[in-house]
Amino acid sequence: FSGISTFAHLEYHKCLTTPSELYDIAIIGAPFDTAVSYRPGARFGPRAIRAASARQTSFRGYNPRANINPYADWAKILDCGDIPVVPVDNGAALKQMTAAFAELGARTPVSPLLSKPKLITLGGDHSLSLPALRAVRDLYGPVRVLHFDAHLDTWHPAKYPSYWSSEQSRFTHGSMFWLAGEEGLLSNASSAPNVHAGLRTRLSGTEDWDDDDAQNWVRISADDMDDVGTKGIVEQIMGALGTEDPVYLSVDIDVLDPAFAPGTGTPEPGGWTTRELIRVLRGVEGLNVVGADVVEVAPAYQGVGEETALAAAQVVFELLSSMVK
Amino acid sequence: FSGISTFAHLEYHKCLTTPSELYDIAIIGAPFDTAVSYRPGARFGPRAIRAASARQTSFRGYNPRANINPYADWAKILDCGDIPVVPVDNGAALKQMTAAFAELGARTPVSPLLSKPKLITLGGDHSLSLPALRAVRDLYGPVRVLHFDAHLDTWHPAKYPSYWSSEQSRFTHGSMFWLAGEEGLLSNASSAPNVHAGLRTRLSGTEDWDDDDAQNWVRISADDMDDVGTKGIVEQIMGALGTEDPVYLSVDIDVLDPAFAPGTGTPEPGGWTTRELIRVLRGVEGLNVVGADVVEVAPAYQGVGEETALAAAQVVFELLSSMVK
Amino acid sequence: FSGISTFAHLEYHKCLTTPSELYDIAIIGAPFDTAVSYRPGARFGPRAIRAASARQTSFRGYNPRANINPYADWAKILDCGDIPVVPVDNGAALKQMTAAFAELGARTPVSPLLSKPKLITLGGDHSLSLPALRAVRDLYGPVRVLHFDAHLDTWHPAKYPSYWSSEQSRFTHGSMFWLAGEEGLLSNASSAPNVHAGLRTRLSGTEDWDDDDAQNWVRISADDMDDVGTKGIVEQIMGALGTEDPVYLSVDIDVLDPAFAPGTGTPEPGGWTTRELIRVLRGVEGLNVVGADVVEVAPAYQGVGEETALAAAQVVFELLSSMVK
Amino acid sequence: FSGISTFAHLEYHKCLTTPSELYDIAIIGAPFDTAVSYRPGARFGPRAIRAASARQTSFRGYNPRANINPYADWAKILDCGDIPVVPVDNGAALKQMTAAFAELGARTPVSPLLSKPKLITLGGDHSLSLPALRAVRDLYGPVRVLHFDAHLDTWHPAKYPSYWSSEQSRFTHGSMFWLAGEEGLLSNASSAPNVHAGLRTRLSGTEDWDDDDAQNWVRISADDMDDVGTKGIVEQIMGALGTEDPVYLSVDIDVLDPAFAPGTGTPEPGGWTTRELIRVLRGVEGLNVVGADVVEVAPAYQGVGEETALAAAQVVFELLSSMVK
Amino acid sequence: FSGISTFAHLEYHKCLTTPSELYDIAIIGAPFDTAVSYRPGARFGPRAIRAASARQTSFRGYNPRANINPYADWAKILDCGDIPVVPVDNGAALKQMTAAFAELGARTPVSPLLSKPKLITLGGDHSLSLPALRAVRDLYGPVRVLHFDAHLDTWHPAKYPSYWSSEQSRFTHGSMFWLAGEEGLLSNASSAPNVHAGLRTRLSGTEDWDDDDAQNWVRISADDMDDVGTKGIVEQIMGALGTEDPVYLSVDIDVLDPAFAPGTGTPEPGGWTTRELIRVLRGVEGLNVVGADVVEVAPAYQGVGEETALAAAQVVFELLSSMVK
Amino acid sequence: FSGISTFAHLEYHKCLTTPSELYDIAIIGAPFDTAVSYRPGARFGPRAIRAASARQTSFRGYNPRANINPYADWAKILDCGDIPVVPVDNGAALKQMTAAFAELGARTPVSPLLSKPKLITLGGDHSLSLPALRAVRDLYGPVRVLHFDAHLDTWHPAKYPSYWSSEQSRFTHGSMFWLAGEEGLLSNASSAPNVHAGLRTRLSGTEDWDDDDAQNWVRISADDMDDVGTKGIVEQIMGALGTEDPVYLSVDIDVLDPAFAPGTGTPEPGGWTTRELIRVLRGVEGLNVVGADVVEVAPAYQGVGEETALAAAQVVFELLSSMVK
Ligand SMILES: [Mn+2]
Ligand SMILES: [Mn+2]
Ligand SMILES: [Mn+2]
Ligand SMILES: [Mn+2]
Ligand SMILES: [Mn+2]
Ligand SMILES: [Mn+2]
Ligand SMILES: [Mn+2]
Ligand SMILES: [Mn+2]
Ligand SMILES: [Mn+2]
Ligand SMILES: [Mn+2]
Ligand SMILES: [Mn+2]
Ligand SMILES: [Mn+2]
Repeated sequence: FSGISTFAHLEYHKCLTTPSELYDIAIIGAPFDTAVSYRPGARFGPRAIRAASARQTSFRGYNPRANINPYADWAKILDCGDIPVVPVDNGAALKQMTAAFAELGARTPVSPLLSKPKLITLGGDHSLSLPALRAVRDLYGPVRVLHFDAHLDTWHPAKYPSYWSSEQSRFTHGSMFWLAGEEGLLSNASSAPNVHAGLRTRLSGTEDWDDDDAQNWVRISADDMDDVGTKGIVEQIMGALGTEDPVYLSVDIDVLDPAFAPGTGTPEPGGWTTRELIRVLRGVEGLNVVGADVVEVAPAYQGVGEETALAAAQVVFELLSSMVK
Repeated sequence: FSGISTFAHLEYHKCLTTPSELYDIAIIGAPFDTAVSYRPGARFGPRAIRAASARQTSFRGYNPRANINPYADWAKILDCGDIPVVPVDNGAALKQMTAAFAELGARTPVSPLLSKPKLITLGGDHSLSLPALRAVRDLYGPVRVLHFDAHLDTWHPAKYPSYWSSEQSRFTHGSMFWLAGEEGLLSNASSAPNVHAGLRTRLSGTEDWDDDDAQNWVRISADDMDDVGTKGIVEQIMGALGTEDPVYLSVDIDVLDPAFAPGTGTPEPGGWTTRELIRVLRGVEGLNVVGADVVEVAPAYQGVGEETALAAAQVVFELLSSMVK
Repeated sequence: FSGISTFAHLEYHKCLTTPSELYDIAIIGAPFDTAVSYRPGARFGPRAIRAASARQTSFRGYNPRANINPYADWAKILDCGDIPVVPVDNGAALKQMTAAFAELGARTPVSPLLSKPKLITLGGDHSLSLPALRAVRDLYGPVRVLHFDAHLDTWHPAKYPSYWSSEQSRFTHGSMFWLAGEEGLLSNASSAPNVHAGLRTRLSGTEDWDDDDAQNWVRISADDMDDVGTKGIVEQIMGALGTEDPVYLSVDIDVLDPAFAPGTGTPEPGGWTTRELIRVLRGVEGLNVVGADVVEVAPAYQGVGEETALAAAQVVFELLSSMVK
Repeated sequence: FSGISTFAHLEYHKCLTTPSELYDIAIIGAPFDTAVSYRPGARFGPRAIRAASARQTSFRGYNPRANINPYADWAKILDCGDIPVVPVDNGAALKQMTAAFAELGARTPVSPLLSKPKLITLGGDHSLSLPALRAVRDLYGPVRVLHFDAHLDTWHPAKYPSYWSSEQSRFTHGSMFWLAGEEGLLSNASSAPNVHAGLRTRLSGTEDWDDDDAQNWVRISADDMDDVGTKGIVEQIMGALGTEDPVYLSVDIDVLDPAFAPGTGTPEPGGWTTRELIRVLRGVEGLNVVGADVVEVAPAYQGVGEETALAAAQVVFELLSSMVK
Repeated sequence: FSGISTFAHLEYHKCLTTPSELYDIAIIGAPFDTAVSYRPGARFGPRAIRAASARQTSFRGYNPRANINPYADWAKILDCGDIPVVPVDNGAALKQMTAAFAELGARTPVSPLLSKPKLITLGGDHSLSLPALRAVRDLYGPVRVLHFDAHLDTWHPAKYPSYWSSEQSRFTHGSMFWLAGEEGLLSNASSAPNVHAGLRTRLSGTEDWDDDDAQNWVRISADDMDDVGTKGIVEQIMGALGTEDPVYLSVDIDVLDPAFAPGTGTPEPGGWTTRELIRVLRGVEGLNVVGADVVEVAPAYQGVGEETALAAAQVVFELLSSMVK
Repeated sequence: FSGISTFAHLEYHKCLTTPSELYDIAIIGAPFDTAVSYRPGARFGPRAIRAASARQTSFRGYNPRANINPYADWAKILDCGDIPVVPVDNGAALKQMTAAFAELGARTPVSPLLSKPKLITLGGDHSLSLPALRAVRDLYGPVRVLHFDAHLDTWHPAKYPSYWSSEQSRFTHGSMFWLAGEEGLLSNASSAPNVHAGLRTRLSGTEDWDDDDAQNWVRISADDMDDVGTKGIVEQIMGALGTEDPVYLSVDIDVLDPAFAPGTGTPEPGGWTTRELIRVLRGVEGLNVVGADVVEVAPAYQGVGEETALAAAQVVFELLSSMVK
C-alpha cells in the first residue's frame, strides 16, 4: 500500500515522450473505453490493475508455478504509464493509440535475448487490440492471435443495429478482430489459425461463425472446460498455435465468470474460474508470445474487495513469468 | 441500456387487465417478498432481472448451446409486467397471485403448437410457486416439479419456531411445496416423483426427509455434482421425470453459491457455479416444461456488477430456449 | 416496486416512431455519455432515474410545496422512452439527438393551454443540451438558459489538452453551451442574460470568465448560497431572467455536493444540498420554462440507497409541478 | 469492535422471558419490517444500530451538549434484546409486539426517580409505534406524540391502492398514527396537539391534512428549517407540547436527507442534516418523554461506512442523555 | 435476524472473567488485526462471522453431510465473546492473547467425553495462531497443524523489507507458524509432519520452501485440486496427519478464491471454491482436532451480501460438526 | 484518469532517498494506520487521495475562491511519494516517520520566497501529526496548531481502557497532541493558544477539558457553526492565531459529517459540510501555515463515488492555494 502506484512497484518512465528510455518488456496503459456497447468504465482499468498489483514486488516475486521471479531475472521491465487518448472521438483515439504502439514497439530492447521489446497493455476496452496488432504486424508481419473472451469480437460491423451505421461506428470492442483480419494483421492460412477460448455469448446466428471461419479462427467454448479440462484446453491451443509462430495474446477479463470478474462491461454468466484461466495460461507458456493485453476491467463494477483487478493483475504476472522464462 | 426496461426488450403489455392480449410465452413479475424467513428484498427481483436482461435482444439472441434464437422463432413472447400484490397481508397476496396466474395461464396461445400458453415468473420469493402451481394444476392436473434450490422448501409448518403459530404463518418460502403437496397439486405416485437439485442446507433432522419422502421427492444434493458431474445430474433428473409428463421447473437462485448469487435472501455456501447450473438446464431440455419460475433474487444484496440478476436473466434465457426449441 | 419501470408509472409510448402519439409534456431519455471528460456511466442515468421515481404516482402525487398534483391536472404527461443514440461516434450521436428533439418538440400538444409540447430530458451527459437547444431555438428562437452546475460548460474547445484537437472533440459535456452560443441558440443581448448557478470548479484562469461573459452569462457561485440564502439566489435568477422570455432549464446533478449526488461523472466537493436546490427550483417557478433536462446521473457511482437518482427524480417532479402549475 | 454487540456495550438480558430483570431504561429491538410500502430490510435495523453504537461506552460516554454521561449516572440502562416477532403475518406480529411492550413497560423501575421504566425501541419499521403507544397509553393514558419524519404516517387506510383492501392491510408504517388516534391512544384536545416535524413527502391531496387535523396534529415541514432554524423549530415544538404532559418521541430516520440516511425504506430528498436533528433533539430536552423509538433503519441500503446506523445510534444517545438528565 | 448477535444464537458468557463458566467447546473472538502486511480490518471479523451465523440455530442445526446436529448433542457449546486485545502494541497484544487462550483452554470441560475443552477462535488476523498454539502445547505438548491458506505463513522474519527490522516486527500474520516452530509448539519429527493446503502465493524464492521444510511441513497447492480432486486432497492430508495425534486446524479464509472470499486482507486469485473447502473439511473429520481457528475475515472488503463471513460461519459449523461427532 | 496516479499529476520523485531533489512544497504520504482505536484502513488514504485528485491539473488549476492557480505560480510543488513505515510496530514506525519528516523538512527550498520548504502530509491516521510536529519544532521552535477534528486528540493516555497500559500504547491517534504538548512541540503561552475546530465527540468527562486547557487549546465545537456561521468561526480562529506565528494546520477528515466523509475510522454524526469547511479554510488563508496534514481517510469505508477522498483532495488544493498565495 506504500508508494506511487505503478504496476508491481516497477520503475516508472514516460516512455512515449522519452525516446531514450529502453526496456525489454513495457507495461503500458490504454485508458480508452468509448468503443464499448454496454457499460463503459474501463478507462479506469489501468489505474485499478496497478492498484491491485501492489502486493507484487521484486523481492517476493517468485512464481512457484513457473519457477521464476520475472521481476528479478534477465528482463528489464518498466511501467511506461498511459497512452494519452482522447475520450470523445474514437477516430482520433485510434490514431493516437496506433502511433503510440508503433513508437513503443519499435524501440531497441535492453537484453540481447530479444530483437524487439514486448508490450503488455492494460485496457481499456478491447478495441485497443487493433492498434496494438498494427504495431505487431509492422514488426513481425501477420501474427497469430490467442484470444480469451466470452465474445467473438470478430463481428462484422454490419451486424450492429442500423443506427450504428456511421463509418466511425465500425470500430468497436466487438469488431476489432474482424477489422484486424480485414487489414491483414492476422494470419490467414487455414493451417495457421487463430484461437478464441472461453466463448459463450449469444450470437446473431450461425452466420457469425461463418464470418469467424472466414478469418481463420478456431473456437473453444467455455463449456469445453467441463468436457476436456484445463489440460484439454491447453492441448487444443498448443495444437493450433505451436511454439514457433509469433502470437499476440489477448485476455478479455470477461472470459471469467461474473463471480470472478464482475468489474467488466459485458459480463456473461457461465464463464471460467480464475484458477482455470491461470492454469491454461501456465499451460501455454511455450507459445512465442510477442505482445499481449489484459482488457475490459471496469472497476466501478467490481466489489470493494477488488476481485476483478486482482485477477487481471495476476494474469499480467503469469504473462510476465512466461515471457521472461 | 436504452429503452424502457422490459425483459430482453420484449414488447410490453399489461396482460392482466387486457384480456385480448395473447401470447405463447409470458414473462410475468411477482414482486412479493413477505413470506421470507431472513433477508427480504426479492420484491425488487423482477426489476433487477429485467435490467440485467438488457443485453438480450432478438437481433442477437441466438443461443449457441441450444442452436436457436428463442426471440425470433415461432413463439410470441411478451413481457406482461407485474402482478399487483399487497405487501402487508400474505393471505390477501396469495389470493391475488392465485387469481392472476389462473387468468394468465388460461388464455389462448397464439401458436397452434401450444394448447396453453406458458408462464415464466420472475420472483419475488419462492412462495409464489404455490399460486403458480394452482394455475398449472387447473390446466394439466397434478404435475411433476423440478426444483433447483439449496433448500427443501417442503418444510412442514410445524417445523417453524413456536411464535410462528398463526394460520397465515403456514404459507412461507420454505413450506410452499409442502402446501402444494397437501393441496394435491403435485404428482404423488412414487413412480412419478418430483425432484430437488442442489440441496445443502441445515435441517431440523432426518424427519425433514420423512416429510419430503411422503410427498414423493427425489433429492439431489449440491455435493453430488462433485461425484457425478453435470452429466450425472442430468441423467438423474431425466431418469426421474422423463420427457412426457408436464413439469413445473422452479429455480431458486440460491442454488448457486453465494459467490455467484449473493443477491438472495437465504444464501448457503457451497453451491453450484452458474456454468454448472446452465449446463444442467441445457441437459434437461427434453423435459415437457409447462411453466417455470426464477425466484429469490434480492438485488440489494448483489454487487454493483449485478452478478446475481445476470445469472437469473441467463436462466430465463435458457428456459426460453428450451421452451421454444 | 411493481410494474414496468417508467417515470412515475406514467404511460409509456415509443413516441419517436409513433407520430400520432401526442402529449403536453414528454419525459424522454437520452442515454448518451461519450462526451464526458472523466467518469462515464450516465448512459444508465435514464434507467436509474426512472427506477428512483417508482414512489411517485398520480394517486399520491400532490406536491405540498407547489400546491398541485402534476400527474392529475390538465397536462397529459407521457414517458416517451429513450432516444436511440450510437455510443461510439459522437458526431453521429449528435445528429441522432438533434433529429429526435426536433421531431418530439414539434408535435401538437393535447391541451389548448400550450402552443408547443414541453420536453424534459433525462441524461445522459450534459452535452445533450446542445441538440435539445437546437430544437427549442427552432420553435422559439434564441432562448435564455438557467443552468445549475458546478461547472461553466461554456469552455472554449481550445481550452482542452492539445491531443483533443480533432473536430469531433469540440463537442463535449464542457463545451456544449459555448457551442450553443456560437450557433446562435442563446440570447445574446446583455439585457437578457443567461444564468449559471452553483459554480465552484477550477478554471483555466480568468479568461474562462471572459469567454463566458462574451456569451452573456451571469454567474452565481455555490458559495453565494452561504451569503444570500435560497431567497437571495432566487432573486438573482428571477431578476436576470424575468417571467416572460422562454427559458431552457438545465440541471447538472453535480450542482449538488458529492454527499448528495456521488453518482455523477465530475463531482466537485462543496456543493449545494438537495434541500437548497429544491427550494431554489420552487422559488423560480414563475419562469417561462419551455424545456428542461436533468443530466449527469451516473448510477454506478451512487450508493446502494440510490440517493443521486432519487434527487434527480425529485428535481423532475418539481419541474413538472412548475410546468403544470 | 470488541465484545458481543449490545447497544453501547450495555449489559444484556433477555428481559421479556426474565420477569425479575429490572431497569430504568430498556433498549429493545423490534426486528419487524413487513408493514412497509417500499424497500423492506428494517428487520436488520436493531442489529445495525447496535453495531454502530460500538464506540459508545460508559467510560467515555460524557455528552458535552447535555453535560451528562447517561451511562454513568442514576439510571440503570439495559439492552433487553429483541422482541420475537413473526415476519409473515402482520396481524400476529402486532399482537406479539403489543404483548411485549405491555410486559416490558409495566415492570418496576430500579430508581425511585421513576414511577415506570422507559423503553427506547430500535426498529424495525414505523408501524411498531402503534403497539408501543398501546403500552404507553395503558400506563399514562392518552399521550402526546412528537414525530420526526418525512411522512405524515396518519394516512387513512382508504388512501392506499384498491388492492390493499384487506383488514390486515390497514396496519402499515404509513397508517399507524391514524390507527393510534382511532384507538384513543393520542391526546385529542386541540389545546394539546401532537407534532410532526420534518415533513416533505407527496400527498394524496389536501384531504390528507384534513385527516391529520382531525387527529390533532401540528405540522412542521422540512423546509421550515430554512426559515426559522433549529431554534425556531425547537420553539414551535416546545410551544405545542410543553414540559408536563407525557410525550412519546418517535424518530423515523428518513427525517434526515438521503445523503445522511440512505439506509431507509422510503427516502425523501430534501431532508434535514444530522446536525440539525441533533440540535433540535437537544433543544427539546425539557419535554417529559416517557417512551421513544428510532425506526426505519434498513442497513442493506446504507453505505459501507454505516452512516445511517451511526446517525440512529447518535439519536438514541441524545435521547438517553435527555431521559437521564 | 432477531436477538443479540452471538454465534449461532448460542448462549453467551464472558468466560474469561467468569472462571466458573464451563463448556466443552468455546467460540471465542480475537479482534486483532495489526500484524497484517496489507489490508487491515479483520478486527471486525468476529462481529461479521457472528452476524453471518444468524441462520444457524439449534432447532434447525442438523448437518446432513455429517449426520449430526452439533448444537443439540452431547457438547455444551458457548459463545465466550471476545478477548480484550490492545490494537496499538502488538507485543502487548500477544501477551494478552497468550494469557487468554491459556486461561480458556485449561478449564474443565462439562462432558466426560473430553479431557480438555476445545476452542474455536474467530479471527482476527492469522497471527493469533501463535498464542493459540502456545495454549495447545501446554495442554498436549507439540501438536500437528493442518493449515488451509493461500500463503505459507512460515516466513522467516528476515524475509521482510529491511525497514521491518525491529524485534516486534518479527511477529506477523506471515511469520507466526515459523515462530511457533522456533518455540517448539509444532511437531518436528519428519514422520509427523504438518500440512499446508491451498497454497498459491508468490515467494521470496525456493529458499522459502527450505525454511518450510526445516519446520517439517507438507505442502499441498491450490492447483493440486485440479489434479487429484477433493478426495485426493483428503487422502494426502489424512495420510500425513493420521487419526491419533492432536491436530490444530487453522483456516485462513484466503484459501478461498477472491470470488468466494473477497473480504480478506491478502487475497490471492486462483483459490478453491467454498464447496471444495467444505468437502475437504468433511473428508478430514477423522482427525483428532483439539483446537481450531477461522481467520482473516475482513468484512469491509466483502460484498453487501456477506459472502465471505457466510463462508467462514459455514466453516465453523463444519468444524463443530466434526468435533461433536 | 490517465497517467500514473500522483497528486494532481504533479511530478513525482522519491525525495527521501534523493537528497538532491528540491521543492518548495512537498506532498508526502504517510500510509500508517496502526495507531487507531476503531476502524483501520487509513494506510490506503494516500493512494485514495491521489486517485481522487486526478481531475486537478496545472492547466486547469485556477482556484476562483483564491484567485490563483497554485500549480502554475512561483512554487515548485512535488509529489514525494510515501514514507516507508512498518505496519506492525508503532514504536519503530514513529521513529521512521520522525526521521523522514526531519529529512524532508530540512531541505533547501527552490524559491527565495521561502526559508524552509513546506510539507503537506496525506495520512494515514492522525498520530502522524506527532512526528510531523517534531520536524516543524526543529525548524521553527514550538508552533501553534490549528486542528480541525470531531475529536480532541489531546487525550491523556491514562484515559484509555486499562488493558491499553503498555508504554507503546501511549502513542495513538487520540493522544498525539497531548504527547506533542508534553514534548514541548506546541506553544504553551496562554496568550498564544492552539485551536480545535469542529469538536463534537463524547468525552471521559469535563476532566478531558482540563487536560486540554492545560495544553493551551481553544475549543470550537461543530455546533458553533450554527450560531456564528463560517464567518464567525473564521474570526475566532484568526483572533486566536493571528497572521504572524508559524501554524501547523491539521485536518482530520472526520471533522466532516459522515454524509460527506464516511470513509474514515471514527465517524461522528453531526459534523460540518464540505462547503463549510472549505469556506473556513479559505477564510483563514492569512495564517502563516508552515506545515499541514490531511488525515484519517480510510477509503474502504467510502462510497464507490469516492466522496471522502474527493473532499480530502479538495482540502489539499485549498491549502496549496493559501500557501502559494
Ligand atoms: Mn468480452
Ligand atoms: Mn472482448
Ligand atoms: Mn432457497
Ligand atoms: Mn426456495
Ligand atoms: Mn457539471
Ligand atoms: Mn454540466
Ligand atoms: Mn418516513
Ligand atoms: Mn414513518
Ligand atoms: Mn493467507
Ligand atoms: Mn494466513
Ligand atoms: Mn477525529
Ligand atoms: Mn483526529
